[in-house]
Amino acid sequence: MQNYFGYQGAILRVNLNEKTVKNESLNLDEALKFIGGRGLGTKIFFDEVDPKTEPLSAENKLIFATGPLTGTATPTSGRYMVITKSPLTGTIACSNSGGYWGPELKFAGYDAIIVEGKSDEPVYLNITDGKAEIKDASFLWGMTAGEATTALEEIHGNKARVATIGPAGENLSRISGIMNERGRAAGRSGVGAVMGFKNLKAIVVRGTGKISVNDEQSLKAAFSRSMAKIRENGVTGQGLPAYGTAVLVNIINENGAMPTNNFQESYFDKAEEISGETLAEKYMKKKDPCYRCPIACGRYCEVDGIEGSGPEYETVWGFGSDCGISDLGEIIKANYWCNEYGLDTISAAATLAAAMELYQKGYIKKEDLDGGPELIWGNAEAVVEWTKRMGQGKGLGAKMAEGSYRLCESYGVPELSMSVKKQEMPAYDPRGIQGIGLNYATSNRGGCHVRGYMISPEILSLPQGLDRFATEGKAEWTKIFQDFTAAIDAVGLCLFTSFAMGADDYADLLNAVCGTELTGNDFIAHGERIWNLEKVFNLKAGIEPSQDTLPKRLLEDPIASGPSKGHVNKLSETLPQYYKARGWAEDGVPTLEKLAALGLGEYGVTALDKLAALGLDE
Amino acid sequence: MQNYFGYQGAILRVNLNEKTVKNESLNLDEALKFIGGRGLGTKIFFDEVDPKTEPLSAENKLIFATGPLTGTATPTSGRYMVITKSPLTGTIACSNSGGYWGPELKFAGYDAIIVEGKSDEPVYLNITDGKAEIKDASFLWGMTAGEATTALEEIHGNKARVATIGPAGENLSRISGIMNERGRAAGRSGVGAVMGFKNLKAIVVRGTGKISVNDEQSLKAAFSRSMAKIRENGVTGQGLPAYGTAVLVNIINENGAMPTNNFQESYFDKAEEISGETLAEKYMKKKDPCYRCPIACGRYCEVDGIEGSGPEYETVWGFGSDCGISDLGEIIKANYWCNEYGLDTISAAATLAAAMELYQKGYIKKEDLDGGPELIWGNAEAVVEWTKRMGQGKGLGAKMAEGSYRLCESYGVPELSMSVKKQEMPAYDPRGIQGIGLNYATSNRGGCHVRGYMISPEILSLPQGLDRFATEGKAEWTKIFQDFTAAIDAVGLCLFTSFAMGADDYADLLNAVCGTELTGNDFIAHGERIWNLEKVFNLKAGIEPSQDTLPKRLLEDPIASGPSKGHVNKLSETLPQYYKARGWAEDGVPTLEKLAALGLGEYGVTALDKLAALGLDE
Repeated sequence: MQNYFGYQGAILRVNLNEKTVKNESLNLDEALKFIGGRGLGTKIFFDEVDPKTEPLSAENKLIFATGPLTGTATPTSGRYMVITKSPLTGTIACSNSGGYWGPELKFAGYDAIIVEGKSDEPVYLNITDGKAEIKDASFLWGMTAGEATTALEEIHGNKARVATIGPAGENLSRISGIMNERGRAAGRSGVGAVMGFKNLKAIVVRGTGKISVNDEQSLKAAFSRSMAKIRENGVTGQGLPAYGTAVLVNIINENGAMPTNNFQESYFDKAEEISGETLAEKYMKKKDPCYRCPIACGRYCEVDGIEGSGPEYETVWGFGSDCGISDLGEIIKANYWCNEYGLDTISAAATLAAAMELYQKGYIKKEDLDGGPELIWGNAEAVVEWTKRMGQGKGLGAKMAEGSYRLCESYGVPELSMSVKKQEMPAYDPRGIQGIGLNYATSNRGGCHVRGYMISPEILSLPQGLDRFATEGKAEWTKIFQDFTAAIDAVGLCLFTSFAMGADDYADLLNAVCGTELTGNDFIAHGERIWNLEKVFNLKAGIEPSQDTLPKRLLEDPIASGPSKGHVNKLSETLPQYYKARGWAEDGVPTLEKLAALGLGEYGVTALDKLAALGLDE
Repeated sequence: MQNYFGYQGAILRVNLNEKTVKNESLNLDEALKFIGGRGLGTKIFFDEVDPKTEPLSAENKLIFATGPLTGTATPTSGRYMVITKSPLTGTIACSNSGGYWGPELKFAGYDAIIVEGKSDEPVYLNITDGKAEIKDASFLWGMTAGEATTALEEIHGNKARVATIGPAGENLSRISGIMNERGRAAGRSGVGAVMGFKNLKAIVVRGTGKISVNDEQSLKAAFSRSMAKIRENGVTGQGLPAYGTAVLVNIINENGAMPTNNFQESYFDKAEEISGETLAEKYMKKKDPCYRCPIACGRYCEVDGIEGSGPEYETVWGFGSDCGISDLGEIIKANYWCNEYGLDTISAAATLAAAMELYQKGYIKKEDLDGGPELIWGNAEAVVEWTKRMGQGKGLGAKMAEGSYRLCESYGVPELSMSVKKQEMPAYDPRGIQGIGLNYATSNRGGCHVRGYMISPEILSLPQGLDRFATEGKAEWTKIFQDFTAAIDAVGLCLFTSFAMGADDYADLLNAVCGTELTGNDFIAHGERIWNLEKVFNLKAGIEPSQDTLPKRLLEDPIASGPSKGHVNKLSETLPQYYKARGWAEDGVPTLEKLAALGLGEYGVTALDKLAALGLDE
């Protein structure tokens, strides 16, 4: 018998075609090789699903995975991840959420859930202490995330934790996410649509189990060291606790890297009005911390009788400066409706910004608006109303719910979509911050800041300051950040700990819990393995390296004004350096040697795979 | 018409004899003179209630008061206070609680509630947006605080905020408090018994109103300055956020000032096992922040299926080292039962410690225990079981529920009660920290650390370090801390802000909200006015200055071992200096000149008052 420490040793397999549930043993060797969460979830997914599978089909699977540290006595251990093939990007997707659902799944006895097939009727899954049942969800269908959560809490008690889709997921919106505890989201890459396609409305979990720890004394010591670093760090100990992630509004704007009016500008003169400081002063009712989090960056805000979790910095940016809006109260409302309808706030807001540019340029016309408010920069009423219509899939809102790329493409101007691999980029202009642009371009799930948060060294000087306009060295830093992040996403801790903690600290925590003997470098190497596995999946799915790029605007149009005036992103310089730093071939494909060295020999991309991915193998 | 800024301008008067409710206007001049909360509440109480009133009588009143900053956009603005004559001490009582109930009362349109008389049957009060009704509470009677809160939320919706007593308050326990949001307590001085005597089970509040602010721009600036100080301070920015108030366990113990086994020792060799660090590592599920609090010291813990708010440092100390207990899980359970039964954790735990000494010395015998667990140092089972029996008022538990002084007195050894004016002292040994002893002795509500937290300069070196064994200067510091604290309690902010904020900061916030023009010195002077008013009330109530003392043990028995070995508290040195620093007569009575200078001329204690207080006036 295997001794599981950190892991619960069980995976729940749910087949919605056959309406069966089955407990399977965790393969511990595989788990230790890919850690858990994003790593193990991707490994299992890759082994079970053909990369060419259509995302919105019964053949696509949906994996909910925790890490070995999820639910343990480690700081910020509240994370879980959702792995599937993205209907937005066509890449592997891994969406990450905090709150309490992930730990509860562990306490219920499972490391992960694999959902297969498609139900004919709406169902939800109820999991309690090692047992699972598939239940009718017809009464829940059509409910917002908040409504469904309340309904399920009434049935299963208020200690049950609920992850659910809203109407956007039901409507197969490609920018819909999965909400847990009402205001936490596995938001990005359209994972909600996959759940909606499967007719799976929600997963309720309740558990009373414990997680075994290999060495309690070592854990206590490692915990204390990590806590001290989190406490003493300026970002995790002061900035985030005081003002939440929106503490970045003024910082990023002062660097002239705050995309405004759909990246047409990069400085917002009303930033102060939508800042974390203003949020704390005018709207914040309380902090809204995740499981075991010493940082507590989460906000809970109230305006005009509407209240709920958030908004985060990226949300404030998206519905704020990117739409030319300075009314923070209306931004809170738009955020609230995203949470209720189950929309990813970054993609929803950025799609609205794209729609405003389409309106500005005459592609969308007034008669297309079905009497809705005009899509004019700064029109806060429009932002709230069109968010609702996106969530409801009504009229032009239904088109928007497909994301900015498909929206802009439908008007013949895909270049107005500020996205990478069809996923909207977040709140940092890559022209003013070179490294984040390289990260956007090479992210395995499309435009994303949390695959390798180069803002940390380029703006916050953590762990050391880099010249944000420089290109040299950015490839190597981006690689390290991407690998490090993949490993953190695999263990089940929050990425924000990495402002304060180093690779050795994560390794110490993991070793104490699991009985492993990893060094900090080993930890990052595990992340590199995960990154390469994701990349190979994408290549086999037909996502060519030519898609490792940025919107033309960012490569060719210099920023017109503000502290980053005159700059473009120099991806043509950094990208070749990046492939080199990764030890990949010049064409951006991982070499068989590299993959073998990472223990991924069997996943190598051969000439035949390339042809297959392009549909030329027959 | 008066312009109210900060204040709502209305007081709710509830008469339980006549079952009437009445809205009255706030006297703004009076409000500005006494600020609000503890200040204004005491002023109103003093003007309406004869100091000689029996606390458990229909003539005693119960005032719930907010401050002008309660519910405003200022940091930690979640406080309300309960003012009454204490059935534990016979002094004026002011118990202070955080959470969300206080702001909600403001949003409902009231600055304060005055409860008069006594109902024949159990009732509760329901307040919604300027309207109040007295309702039958017979179905709630006997419920724990958590049960009653849940029942009332089911009736009035989960946005309603509930303050309620538990069975201990119903049973007129002199150490019972009032609980809001299940885990927040106006805990000390037996205010719960006054509510229980009145047959008032709970007050439900719900409000959607706003609070007018005089100068939004100034408020924003003052808010930012205060937030920056809170963020950058080691205690409010690091220690409390990371480990809650229990961060003090190791600090106080390392100074040899952690009372152990009912103050028989002052160093606990198992402190690490009950520390804030261990709490965070083993039991903390999440942070549990109050309204608008940037610090979020509140913990939410879980053990063996029991979960809830707390424990705080004083609770950990009381059920921990003071009872010789090192099992933090059992301490969490005892804390939970205090919250459910509505017992003050400090008094309940210290009474248990006294009971253990009574058992050790043979006063309480095994046959007195009704089969309950033996009251032996370190017996964790006893601590949990006897806490429940105290809450239920069962057998010896009913005697304990009267507090340690009455318990020890019933065995003829009142000196074994570690109390001042019959109220149990908290978790700092005055032999190892001279100033806190002077504060305990002179506190207007009996043994209490939060009337003038001398731990701040004597241990934490804030705002500057003082030699904890020295006596010189402590009188002046104690006076300043007491006055400063009274003013903070009057505005409606949390005392913990004072680790970081100075008097000028509070004055700035108050001026911005209310349109006043106070300096920092004015702010402290308002506190001095409140302090003197309380003192005069106590003198008129018959609380003689001879009661400004400490238990004999602390004055005569040197600490036997540990870092404070050999020390006693030198109150005979500091007390005369204190009276002098206060500008009072040598006998500890405020002079008429002093009172006149503070605008309290009409409250002066005359020879006739003294005779009356002693019952010799007829």
